[in-house]
Amino acid sequence: MSGRQVVGRLYGIGIGPGDPELLTVKAVRLIQAAPVVSYFAKAGRRGNARAIADRWMTGKAEELPLYYAMTTEHAFDSPVYAAALAAFYGDAEAAIAARLDAGCDVALLSEGDPFFYGSFMHLYMRLRSRYAVTLVPGVTGMAGCWAVAGEPMAWGDDTLSVLTGTLPLTVLVERLRAADAAVIMKLGRNFAKVRAAVDAAGLLSRAIYVERGTMEDQVVSALADKTDGPAPYFSLILIPGRGRRQ
Amino acid sequence: MSGRQVVGRLYGIGIGPGDPELLTVKAVRLIQAAPVVSYFAKAGRRGNARAIADRWMTGKAEELPLYYAMTTEHAFDSPVYAAALAAFYGDAEAAIAARLDAGCDVALLSEGDPFFYGSFMHLYMRLRSRYAVTLVPGVTGMAGCWAVAGEPMAWGDDTLSVLTGTLPLTVLVERLRAADAAVIMKLGRNFAKVRAAVDAAGLLSRAIYVERGTMEDQVVSALADKTDGPAPYFSLILIPGRGRRQ
Repeated sequence: MSGRQVVGRLYGIGIGPGDPELLTVKAVRLIQAAPVVSYFAKAGRRGNARAIADRWMTGKAEELPLYYAMTTEHAFDSPVYAAALAAFYGDAEAAIAARLDAGCDVALLSEGDPFFYGSFMHLYMRLRSRYAVTLVPGVTGMAGCWAVAGEPMAWGDDTLSVLTGTLPLTVLVERLRAADAAVIMKLGRNFAKVRAAVDAAGLLSRAIYVERGTMEDQVVSALADKTDGPAPYFSLILIPGRGRRQ
Repeated sequence: MSGRQVVGRLYGIGIGPGDPELLTVKAVRLIQAAPVVSYFAKAGRRGNARAIADRWMTGKAEELPLYYAMTTEHAFDSPVYAAALAAFYGDAEAAIAARLDAGCDVALLSEGDPFFYGSFMHLYMRLRSRYAVTLVPGVTGMAGCWAVAGEPMAWGDDTLSVLTGTLPLTVLVERLRAADAAVIMKLGRNFAKVRAAVDAAGLLSRAIYVERGTMEDQVVSALADKTDGPAPYFSLILIPGRGRRQ
């Protein structure tokens, strides 16, 4: 008999854009098999990821919520914000590592796809050298949104650029002008700036605003018709491409 | 009693990057419920989409393969190619419309996501004004590939640009230089040109080549190590972003 400890495996699981039926078969299987299911949430909330996965939870797993420090009172490029976030990820890393060291697999839920602007990536970089990790790709929020908008996004030779609303106005305008098709994520309090950038790039008449796409209370409208912000967490802007068509 | 005909609904179903478990729960449910399952294929082949969905086929549906004309002997911007493709889509449209008119729902399978460079889009534009259409977004090929490459793609403020290997060399170099993270699709016989563009943009040391990602015979390597083309249909190049990290 060997005394060697069997260590758990970390699963980074994309759970899609919001509709519980848009989890993959693999995601459902792994969530239902995992002894520990973990997810990010704001303190005092259940969290979006946990809500999306709710239909598939067996009730048998340990649930390990990772509560974000409330950091919205600081600019995201401030040292205070950076320190708070580093402390949060350090605590989350330790909590997950403790379960893996005890021999338990951990399924960590990510809205959309885990490698596409996901908080999961920060924990992955901290844990990948010490533990086995399996990634389960998911349907991205943007794919969910363009499906409900009913507009094909990228045709033929189209270049699709995915931009974030956190960029400065002039950078947004320049990158929008260079793209054939574009998605703008991370709207929130950047909404007014982003809308101005879309307008300055001459794209307002083609832009679509989608909020909570694929969820029961989804909103799809012309960006031209949404004149006020802020926009909620699950929202983005689509500028469909117009490439070669048959 | 009304004599009004009940018309079928068209489902555009993303079936993901290749692993049969990466279909969504919704995709599986709709494929198994549809009286007609349709997919694109080369003449004389079963086709990639049909192969990926194989595990989920009940054997009860009518299968409606849409066989592409063999057009590789003509340049894609030639009038001969355009005419052959228009004829192909016209025939496909008629075949699907006949089933819908007969009151049958049709599930049309798309590799990856149906609105992301999918052949489905051409039929959608022809049929959307006459029939009810429901889109089921899927895991894109690129998300499958970056999951198996084990590299987070887009961080913080990163701009992700999705480019096609069909673009001219100089355009590729310019767009690669402007991106923080990039994916290059449609390699095929463009592989040598694309590799030269990545090198000219100073990105060869960061670029990853993935072939048949998430399938049993997948290949992941540094692009620097793949010196010869062509590359098969299911292949792409990833240049992961390096944005703000914790």
